[in-house]
Amino acid sequence: MFTINISPRFGDIDGLGHVNNTVLAAWFELARNPIFRIFMPELTLSHDKWPLIMAHTDYDFIDQLFFRYDVEIRSYISRIGSKSFTVYHEAWQQGRLCAKGSAVLVCYDFIKNQTVEIAQDKKNLLSKHLLPQDASKI
Amino acid sequence: MFTINISPRFGDIDGLGHVNNTVLAAWFELARNPIFRIFMPELTLSHDKWPLIMAHTDYDFIDQLFFRYDVEIRSYISRIGSKSFTVYHEAWQQGRLCAKGSAVLVCYDFIKNQTVEIAQDKKNLLSKHLLPQDASKI
Amino acid sequence: MFTINISPRFGDIDGLGHVNNTVLAAWFELARNPIFRIFMPELTLSHDKWPLIMAHTDYDFIDQLFFRYDVEIRSYISRIGSKSFTVYHEAWQQGRLCAKGSAVLVCYDFIKNQTVEIAQDKKNLLSKHLLPQDASKI
Amino acid sequence: MFTINISPRFGDIDGLGHVNNTVLAAWFELARNPIFRIFMPELTLSHDKWPLIMAHTDYDFIDQLFFRYDVEIRSYISRIGSKSFTVYHEAWQQGRLCAKGSAVLVCYDFIKNQTVEIAQDKKNLLSKHLLPQDASKI
Repeated sequence: MFTINISPRFGDIDGLGHVNNTVLAAWFELARNPIFRIFMPELTLSHDKWPLIMAHTDYDFIDQLFFRYDVEIRSYISRIGSKSFTVYHEAWQQGRLCAKGSAVLVCYDFIKNQTVEIAQDKKNLLSKHLLPQDASKI
Repeated sequence: MFTINISPRFGDIDGLGHVNNTVLAAWFELARNPIFRIFMPELTLSHDKWPLIMAHTDYDFIDQLFFRYDVEIRSYISRIGSKSFTVYHEAWQQGRLCAKGSAVLVCYDFIKNQTVEIAQDKKNLLSKHLLPQDASKI
Repeated sequence: MFTINISPRFGDIDGLGHVNNTVLAAWFELARNPIFRIFMPELTLSHDKWPLIMAHTDYDFIDQLFFRYDVEIRSYISRIGSKSFTVYHEAWQQGRLCAKGSAVLVCYDFIKNQTVEIAQDKKNLLSKHLLPQDASKI
Repeated sequence: MFTINISPRFGDIDGLGHVNNTVLAAWFELARNPIFRIFMPELTLSHDKWPLIMAHTDYDFIDQLFFRYDVEIRSYISRIGSKSFTVYHEAWQQGRLCAKGSAVLVCYDFIKNQTVEIAQDKKNLLSKHLLPQDASKI
């Protein structure tokens, strides 16, 4: 599991007093930084070096997220395929699971414009953060 | 179908030269304004008036979206339930379907904190924008 | 003058019911697209082609911007120097000037990491959009 | 001085490999949370409770901010007036001052729609975070 703590920003709150749904997309992306570092430790953003492309994201909004409390984002690897893997995220505030979601990332060669196999050493590193069985019941 | 045209912004483009995945969340939300107006014509954001809450969103990233061309967002109603409905969105650029996704909105009473039935007149208005059968094959 | 029309997005509205101050930064940046095109018609974002770097921005928040009405962004060139120029922006809603601001852009060679002179033909194109004298009294 | 540490997000980086200028607006706003708490400890966002309105912000972009390193935002109070005060922010990365800026906040009664005096106890709390003289030479 990877965890980060986030303080909501004044502008993250929408007209009904809750964190706007689009903000979760940004928070979950931020939570993927340690996963990005498995593939590119220096986080170098160039076509010849960056090895991942986004294929899919989804978000379930379960409970209201407020301005005044910090939010903990917990991230797990929920699937490791041959060329892609899935990250599962949860947003917790004051002991409440408020949102969850997932992201499918594909290993990609931006020069050749084609998908590539995930190297075995990367699979090993990802597998250290697998979602535990009981968590999948949430 | 509802359509809006969007010009990408310099900062919407990420370090690999494409529209960042989180930007689609904002664009699809903007495309829901005419749907919001079905339920609240004045777009009044207050707990006693705003009647919708977000339950789920998902996004499929199909092709790269670039800075230089406008993007057309096409939105349809893909499901009308008793208390919730689903909006289906597509992002097109230069004749290419680059992203698609959906959003599940629930009719909600923010004062009583409970879900409510969709009124029949709202169902009728939503049904005028139903996703055609052939579009579902995309 | 360059003008664009923007529909506020649900999430642009903050917890007090107005467009959040950070949103103006994005709207004014979007309004600079035609100015960017003077320097790079294809809007190509690469170090060997993109010729501008941001030095300064400022924003004055004059009146409240609401969700329900479109916003018109009017942009002018308010200064043309030897290596930099200033863009002046206004955000109007329902006949009210709600925000104004400016951005200082510097001509820059990202390969050599140094500022460069503005070419005369670019100066001529910029000068067609100069802020009129009477507008400066606002 | 108030300080927060921020990890840049993948999507904060623009097409030229640097943190987009609009992101600084969000980071500096986040850095104002402890200042907001001086005026509203529970960060309650409602018209009858929230006591501040934004009048002005400005940003100077001094050096490039990259994806791979954390950013420290340092915030000070640089002016305390009768009804408004100014916050001064700096963004540091790897020992480099990369951006600075300020925000003018006005004490405001959102029910009566009028400015109000800053209470003396709030002035005392703000004055504990005054910008030191030598910092103003930066």
